[in-house]
Amino acid sequence: MATVAFIGLGNMGGPMAANLIKAGMTVTVFDLNPQAVAALTDQGALSAKTACGAAASADYVISMLPAGKHVQSIYMGDDHNKGLLDVVGKNTLLIDCSTIDAATAQIVGAKAAEKGIEFMDAPVSGGTAGAAAGTLTFICGGSDAAYAQAQTVLTVMGANIFHAGQVGAGQIAKICNNMLLSVLMVGTSESLQLGIDNGLDPKVLSDIMKVSSGGNWTLEKYNPCPNVMENVPSSKGYQGGFMVDLMVKDLGLSQQAALGSNSSTPMGALARSLYVNHARQGHGRLDFSSIFEQFANQNKK
Amino acid sequence: MATVAFIGLGNMGGPMAANLIKAGMTVTVFDLNPQAVAALTDQGALSAKTACGAAASADYVISMLPAGKHVQSIYMGDDHNKGLLDVVGKNTLLIDCSTIDAATAQIVGAKAAEKGIEFMDAPVSGGTAGAAAGTLTFICGGSDAAYAQAQTVLTVMGANIFHAGQVGAGQIAKICNNMLLSVLMVGTSESLQLGIDNGLDPKVLSDIMKVSSGGNWTLEKYNPCPNVMENVPSSKGYQGGFMVDLMVKDLGLSQQAALGSNSSTPMGALARSLYVNHARQGHGRLDFSSIFEQFANQNKK
Amino acid sequence: MATVAFIGLGNMGGPMAANLIKAGMTVTVFDLNPQAVAALTDQGALSAKTACGAAASADYVISMLPAGKHVQSIYMGDDHNKGLLDVVGKNTLLIDCSTIDAATAQIVGAKAAEKGIEFMDAPVSGGTAGAAAGTLTFICGGSDAAYAQAQTVLTVMGANIFHAGQVGAGQIAKICNNMLLSVLMVGTSESLQLGIDNGLDPKVLSDIMKVSSGGNWTLEKYNPCPNVMENVPSSKGYQGGFMVDLMVKDLGLSQQAALGSNSSTPMGALARSLYVNHARQGHGRLDFSSIFEQFANQNKK
Amino acid sequence: MATVAFIGLGNMGGPMAANLIKAGMTVTVFDLNPQAVAALTDQGALSAKTACGAAASADYVISMLPAGKHVQSIYMGDDHNKGLLDVVGKNTLLIDCSTIDAATAQIVGAKAAEKGIEFMDAPVSGGTAGAAAGTLTFICGGSDAAYAQAQTVLTVMGANIFHAGQVGAGQIAKICNNMLLSVLMVGTSESLQLGIDNGLDPKVLSDIMKVSSGGNWTLEKYNPCPNVMENVPSSKGYQGGFMVDLMVKDLGLSQQAALGSNSSTPMGALARSLYVNHARQGHGRLDFSSIFEQFANQNKK
Repeated sequence: MATVAFIGLGNMGGPMAANLIKAGMTVTVFDLNPQAVAALTDQGALSAKTACGAAASADYVISMLPAGKHVQSIYMGDDHNKGLLDVVGKNTLLIDCSTIDAATAQIVGAKAAEKGIEFMDAPVSGGTAGAAAGTLTFICGGSDAAYAQAQTVLTVMGANIFHAGQVGAGQIAKICNNMLLSVLMVGTSESLQLGIDNGLDPKVLSDIMKVSSGGNWTLEKYNPCPNVMENVPSSKGYQGGFMVDLMVKDLGLSQQAALGSNSSTPMGALARSLYVNHARQGHGRLDFSSIFEQFANQNKK
Repeated sequence: MATVAFIGLGNMGGPMAANLIKAGMTVTVFDLNPQAVAALTDQGALSAKTACGAAASADYVISMLPAGKHVQSIYMGDDHNKGLLDVVGKNTLLIDCSTIDAATAQIVGAKAAEKGIEFMDAPVSGGTAGAAAGTLTFICGGSDAAYAQAQTVLTVMGANIFHAGQVGAGQIAKICNNMLLSVLMVGTSESLQLGIDNGLDPKVLSDIMKVSSGGNWTLEKYNPCPNVMENVPSSKGYQGGFMVDLMVKDLGLSQQAALGSNSSTPMGALARSLYVNHARQGHGRLDFSSIFEQFANQNKK
Repeated sequence: MATVAFIGLGNMGGPMAANLIKAGMTVTVFDLNPQAVAALTDQGALSAKTACGAAASADYVISMLPAGKHVQSIYMGDDHNKGLLDVVGKNTLLIDCSTIDAATAQIVGAKAAEKGIEFMDAPVSGGTAGAAAGTLTFICGGSDAAYAQAQTVLTVMGANIFHAGQVGAGQIAKICNNMLLSVLMVGTSESLQLGIDNGLDPKVLSDIMKVSSGGNWTLEKYNPCPNVMENVPSSKGYQGGFMVDLMVKDLGLSQQAALGSNSSTPMGALARSLYVNHARQGHGRLDFSSIFEQFANQNKK
Repeated sequence: MATVAFIGLGNMGGPMAANLIKAGMTVTVFDLNPQAVAALTDQGALSAKTACGAAASADYVISMLPAGKHVQSIYMGDDHNKGLLDVVGKNTLLIDCSTIDAATAQIVGAKAAEKGIEFMDAPVSGGTAGAAAGTLTFICGGSDAAYAQAQTVLTVMGANIFHAGQVGAGQIAKICNNMLLSVLMVGTSESLQLGIDNGLDPKVLSDIMKVSSGGNWTLEKYNPCPNVMENVPSSKGYQGGFMVDLMVKDLGLSQQAALGSNSSTPMGALARSLYVNHARQGHGRLDFSSIFEQFANQNKK
């Protein structure tokens, strides 16, 4: 069985590592938070005092970190510490599952390539529920060989695994998708409210649009109007799901990419502005479908 | 068999009427254009010199006209002419399939109700191909009784028939859907181009987003990026399909409704501005997926 | 001295009529609200039981009404009542100071022209303070002769009088100006907040931009950031000034015009969406510079 | 007289350095382009083989470079070269006039502060004409002492000198201003075209709005509609002035700042999208007022 080093045991990383253990793999974990480490060692993980210590003899290194700066310093080291690239062998496959800017993924990937080490970015979607259930979606950027080799671990943690292109392509594909998702969500919200304001039942309108040319994922799975669908955040006070603050982060990454490539994304840029305003009004921890409330009938004249 | 009066024999109305004839119904047609009338009488239609003449003894009156002012004057008459509401009996069901503003539909519907006549708005989607094939979508606004009675004729012309609510609701549901469609199209276009600008293959990116949370009708059926899908307008020089000018018309109706109901539709309003600019640059007769070209790599630095 | 009929004695019309009285003119007033009438008769006005009664022998008729439908019915009559155009003579100059859609102004103007009567639209800006002080701005649409003749009364009520073009042009110029004003206000607000978020003093930034290429009326006269300027609504809890609800109305008229002329106004359309959202959140009666709060630091992470 | 090192002799830097020479200062120049250097030595400058060589004994170092990465490497050095901070003394005042991201300015400023050297960012506006005439605007970020000391050289090159705050504040204030400028330009363009589309004379409308609440710098100095003002780019085929590509750059910097500070700038983000589209359509080298053409009547239906 494969040996895996898992770096970063937050809300997502913890349950992902647990699924690897359940599958019988030898998993050595590292996190700065001792409670997060203890939760995994209780389930059978080994632990290490440093990321490099965890990674030294692993077949796979998987990282799940908050932002590009953390990824860069863990892999490439800094003034005080060695990085993973300084300690792992050429047979180790490095898989970063963090959602970060593609530029950082490419910097790390290029450094790894210099040393003959395979690195892949593989950001996920599916949330903490998907992490626990092992049904995440992984969008991978890396060589064909790396992608093939990664199946061993990714299929344990996820249900859908895509190969978007070379290193960095996973990040780009994910933020393109999430930017589009935000546009679907805002567009669906304002369309439903326009219907409501003109006397339509949002359930009837949703049913019509869902099977018409307005059909999209938010109508199918995640209707933002309360009480149109059961068991979605909009019907539970916008609790759970994918937080506004995380959508703001992903929209920021998409705009970062658009600045770098001189791309025009008027809808994505507008969605970001609306989501930032929504977060600044105190709704950052609600589900991102709560943007519906910006349009709804709160104080209609 | 039902007797039908059909008013308005344009690119849509002509083939719709033809399908009623093929189904064995007695169809009396009216249009100001004698060639359009001749094309239908060649197929077995009767003709009348006026709309009122065509409608006088029909079980169903179906109209397919360019704009609200035509609908209002045909049904309610004007300084010089009687309207359909002045001549039809209480057993005649009036079905207006034009895409017009909901306010006019409601005015006509209210006048019909005063006289005890059933009126239904039933705007269509599916284009000239759907009209010819009898596979249109009808979105109906009217009473339950009218909706039930209309099945006799609508099922001959269409494959999907929805009941959106009372009179006017068909128009509202259609423009909500088409506004959302325009947002899907612009959002998908800019997301694909952002991917392309950052090195992704649009086909790979489309495949990923189609089955992810960015999934929507345009990715599924109508990809705007040339050569990602076969047999869609984007792969045929943006010929055929649903013209930019028609999307501009529908977006105008959506904004008209939003002004009337004091609704905010930032994405829909932005889509309208982008489509108007596109039309003004001379692209009004291209398919609406050609908005992709506003973002594409034409003269990238 | 001129005899004037004044129709519509609301927050604006009342003080406007009062200034005509103070200037020594014979003013006959009409309003549905008896208290509004009494306030003017106390100051020396005559009153009439109907608008037509007030207008019958006047040199000038001035109207100040809420919306196009009121203007049309007062001037053109309805099923039950004669209109002003049925009772005034060819020497009477009709001046409508309401802010309404240009299309209605043109309909009334065309009907007046048929009867050989001069009609002018002359919407105002300057608010209730300007109405009381006699310092309003009038933007006029009408013939050169009408414009010249109107000076007698307009100079009593206003300080700036513009001739925008033929009938309806006053309305168009006003809504172009107010749409641009809304864009200046939103753009200035987000620029100031971007500076604040990056450590700048909004007063220093305002001083720099005011004399640079970002200079505009809102920086000069009406800074939206609290405590940058004295005696503006932003420094008084956004009380007073020009209400959000009124800006929403004017932005609606601008979009109405844009739909009619197939014009693209992406900034104006976006401003309308933001202002409608702001109003729906309960801020409709605040000054329109309160849009700044949509961007401000309320719950910044 | 002061001794000055001038680094970067492009379209802006060249004439700026020339003005210092004319004022009698001893100016040592450096640029990678020998022709640019020769043009200055012909006017009396000394030259050096490296930036460090030019700077070694100067009272002032002034740099004018294309982007943040150039500024960072000139001041802080790289793997192969020393930086200016390694060679200048504590009495030398460093003034970077480039328009770059504030973050880089702050990194350089912090490094300078560590060494006890004063550094100031002082981006300019006014274009090549202002550089030649010595009428530039400088927006400075730095200590009060640095700002006071800089007057000696800045007043020779510019007419308006502002102190925006600490290091980096000059960059922030400039991009806030230029973002607002882009909003004024787009908003004015669409407002003028809305007027034109509804029959107004753009000159009359401009005259009215200029002195009303729509008044702004673009109406005052830089009307985007051809033939409303003389001697502006719009009346000369949009030649000269401030290029679309440069506005795209500045809008990119503004969005970069907005991402960093979690700010919402819906108008600025929309303006960027419209300008990027405009550039991608091949208009990047036209004056930025050419955005008017996106709205104009090219192919109106």
